[in-house]
Amino acid sequence: KYDATSTLPSTKLKARANELGLSFTGLEFAKRMDDDDPLQHFRNKFIYPLNEDLPSFDPSLIRGDDECVYLCGNSLGLQPKEAKQCVNRELDKWGKIGLHGHFKGEMPWAFADECVDELSAKVVGAKREEVAIMNGLTVNLHLLLVSFYRPTAKRHKVLLESRAFPSDHYAIESQIRLHGYDPATSMVCLEPREGEHILRTEDILARIASEGDEIACVLFSGIQYYTGQVFDMPAITKAGHEKGCYVGFDLAHAVGNIELQLHDWDVDFACWCTYKYLNTGAGGIAGAFIHKKHAKNDFPKLSGWWGHKMDTRFNMDNKMDLANGAHGYRVSNPPPLLCATLEASLKVFNETSMSALREKSKLLTAYLEMLLDEHYPRPTPANPHSRPYAEVISPRDPDQRGCQLSIMFSVSLKNVYTELEKRGVVCDVRKPYVIRIAPAPLYNSFKDVHRFVQLLGDSLVAAHVNSTTEGV
Amino acid sequence: KYDATSTLPSTKLKARANELGLSFTGLEFAKRMDDDDPLQHFRNKFIYPLNEDLPSFDPSLIRGDDECVYLCGNSLGLQPKEAKQCVNRELDKWGKIGLHGHFKGEMPWAFADECVDELSAKVVGAKREEVAIMNGLTVNLHLLLVSFYRPTAKRHKVLLESRAFPSDHYAIESQIRLHGYDPATSMVCLEPREGEHILRTEDILARIASEGDEIACVLFSGIQYYTGQVFDMPAITKAGHEKGCYVGFDLAHAVGNIELQLHDWDVDFACWCTYKYLNTGAGGIAGAFIHKKHAKNDFPKLSGWWGHKMDTRFNMDNKMDLANGAHGYRVSNPPPLLCATLEASLKVFNETSMSALREKSKLLTAYLEMLLDEHYPRPTPANPHSRPYAEVISPRDPDQRGCQLSIMFSVSLKNVYTELEKRGVVCDVRKPYVIRIAPAPLYNSFKDVHRFVQLLGDSLVAAHVNSTTEGV
Ligand SMILES: Cc1ncc(COP(=O)(O)O)c(C=O)c1O
Ligand SMILES: Cc1ncc(COP(=O)(O)O)c(C=O)c1O
Repeated sequence: KYDATSTLPSTKLKARANELGLSFTGLEFAKRMDDDDPLQHFRNKFIYPLNEDLPSFDPSLIRGDDECVYLCGNSLGLQPKEAKQCVNRELDKWGKIGLHGHFKGEMPWAFADECVDELSAKVVGAKREEVAIMNGLTVNLHLLLVSFYRPTAKRHKVLLESRAFPSDHYAIESQIRLHGYDPATSMVCLEPREGEHILRTEDILARIASEGDEIACVLFSGIQYYTGQVFDMPAITKAGHEKGCYVGFDLAHAVGNIELQLHDWDVDFACWCTYKYLNTGAGGIAGAFIHKKHAKNDFPKLSGWWGHKMDTRFNMDNKMDLANGAHGYRVSNPPPLLCATLEASLKVFNETSMSALREKSKLLTAYLEMLLDEHYPRPTPANPHSRPYAEVISPRDPDQRGCQLSIMFSVSLKNVYTELEKRGVVCDVRKPYVIRIAPAPLYNSFKDVHRFVQLLGDSLVAAHVNSTTEGV
Repeated sequence: KYDATSTLPSTKLKARANELGLSFTGLEFAKRMDDDDPLQHFRNKFIYPLNEDLPSFDPSLIRGDDECVYLCGNSLGLQPKEAKQCVNRELDKWGKIGLHGHFKGEMPWAFADECVDELSAKVVGAKREEVAIMNGLTVNLHLLLVSFYRPTAKRHKVLLESRAFPSDHYAIESQIRLHGYDPATSMVCLEPREGEHILRTEDILARIASEGDEIACVLFSGIQYYTGQVFDMPAITKAGHEKGCYVGFDLAHAVGNIELQLHDWDVDFACWCTYKYLNTGAGGIAGAFIHKKHAKNDFPKLSGWWGHKMDTRFNMDNKMDLANGAHGYRVSNPPPLLCATLEASLKVFNETSMSALREKSKLLTAYLEMLLDEHYPRPTPANPHSRPYAEVISPRDPDQRGCQLSIMFSVSLKNVYTELEKRGVVCDVRKPYVIRIAPAPLYNSFKDVHRFVQLLGDSLVAAHVNSTTEGV
């Protein structure tokens, strides 16, 4: 998997530090990296929360009027400054012309989703007609599974991972039941090997090879929400197809984070939410992908009038004339307010490319990893110590992870999180064991990462003290 | 059906005109009716488009700076003035505290839907736990049908009307196919009698009685979108239950329009959109109702993590512990921006009651009907004439219709519509034959109706002239 011709981001970082005559651990290096960053100006397109506005901030520890350290794009992205304007444009139109907004204005409501599907397609590596913008992620997953999961006595299984995101797990479970099958026998949940956090690609492919004849549908995430692992989507797709399975992906954590080539990888279907790295705000509108080769499929669907071809939709004759491709999967009329925040976000993405973002992202996350390893290493026989430590459970290979590192600690997770919050770090805890830290290449800087690592040091000490005194 | 003890609204109107010593056709009467209207002040809570902002307005015919005549709440309600503030409150929160908005603020995003389900329940006559606010209408219909339409060889039919709204038609069709049945034999589409526009309740009940043993699910609208007919929901529900069918309703045109008592009527399930009489804007969030008696059902569902009980949802252990009642049908996390416009709207409704609104509505629509009958009657042997005329196809019984009248014309529908648009009337055409005029009791006045009827007169003349000259 390692590409011998490409230099590891950590190697690049060290080389650059050398070149500059700086230690990679110092603030000066972070500043210089930011100065070199061709994407640096994007930070200014987002609204950064201030420490003093955060609910648990402690003014005795940090300045209130500083920007917080926001490393939580894996959960909820920051607000593009243009979002408010796009949303209010639609509200103003509604006030001004009422009903006529359906066919007038920059974003005619009857086509609100079509105003954002082209740029969405670009971000996931799809043809425009392969993408529909609609609903929430899990709703879309259901719409897709109705087409792509059609169990028969011989082929009734769904392959997923044991740590799939709960919503995907429940969606699959309920679809299996819908068809009268039993999740106990139809739901194949792959576990990492004993003592490992990360599923090995070879194990996934082996399972598909051995059990594939009984598998109707393979469903993985593009990036695992808990570990940050990137699944090898092209290899899984190929293996699934070789056994006659349909292969789909939940791209919640992948979209806007890594480069995707859904069309070229021959993925059958995919869905994603947009409130994480696509920065559309809580409950943002979701996306769905159906490969062009299925554009005129006759699979079962849960249809609605919005899947009807537009030019004859309003004939209201109750004769379904389905739009080709992903548009045929649309059900209800689209919500312009949600399309508007997506528009604001995609405009920003459209000023750069996923490959440029990914290049920066690899450096930024490697930088985080190096600092963690340097400052808070797990004790080893060669380096025994009793200081609190951090342990990254995300893949060490930069190609096998996105921007997020998932970190376990030697002290109480809850205490570490509490202390980070006091210090203006925004990140999230995922039960049972990790804090997820996701430097988003669009709006995070090397300085953010440097500051986080510093604040983590203070937090580990404080958390350690607290758990000791709690024990008394 | 006529209640002898209750006076017809037209009788009331004439009595009031007499009392005032005014003709009911004059503008003065409209003004006096508005003065008497206890709900008059609600108009001021909405943004009224001006003529000059409408795309087809003709300044040679009307003043640009007058408010338009908006009679289109059946399609898209006007914007409550507070909507913008509610939406921007959530945008501001997102900018200010990012991720923390999930559990902070007036509308914590993790509960955005629960902030609006109680007032929603009030509007449809439901217990709070019977209601979930989510998705679009047709998406909700699918989620509900997955539970309530479970065909067997002996009971595989769905009873609906031949003129059901297309989206409902397609939804049912696709669900029948999903289960391997054939719409040609499983979809029973009731037609009005020859030469009639309105389905007779007796015919619906008779069909349920005769075919009910084979019917899994009865699905009607609460109000027919094309004719404005109110279906007799309690009677249809009772008849369905007597034959062992589940009974559900699409309340798109009923909610916010007429009084609903879903719980007391023992309706099994229902869904509605909110962008019509609930004034939430295009693509507004929809609602779903599941009767309390099904609160702990074990029906098949299309599940997602948002249907999981809140207190254990984030344990992320992939063991589904479904919330009771309608909340268990939620799939994806809710969109606060859409909940915010619903909040703004429901606050207005909560200042009055559906019974007060309905009382005004009956008068307002009867007034429209009387004026149309008076000014543009269809020629009869007793009153032969060759002037253009309007013909109301909505039920004449005020209890059997909501606020909308559907009107056919003796001259080209398209021409009439074009002329109305030039004159600042906002309404809509539904193919094949009608213009729908819906005086919404929340923000429409007797003056609006009076003005509309005047402008319709001018439009009929102009449309008539145009079609005559076109013929030359
Ligand atoms: C009766 C009825 N059902 C459904 C819909 C629309 O469905 P959706 O909100 O899912 O687009 C409409 C929209 O006008 C309607 O009138
Ligand atoms: C991998 C994954 N799938 C699905 C979801 C959420 O689904 P929905 O947007 O339908 O609530 C999330 C949300 O965090 C997620 O991380």
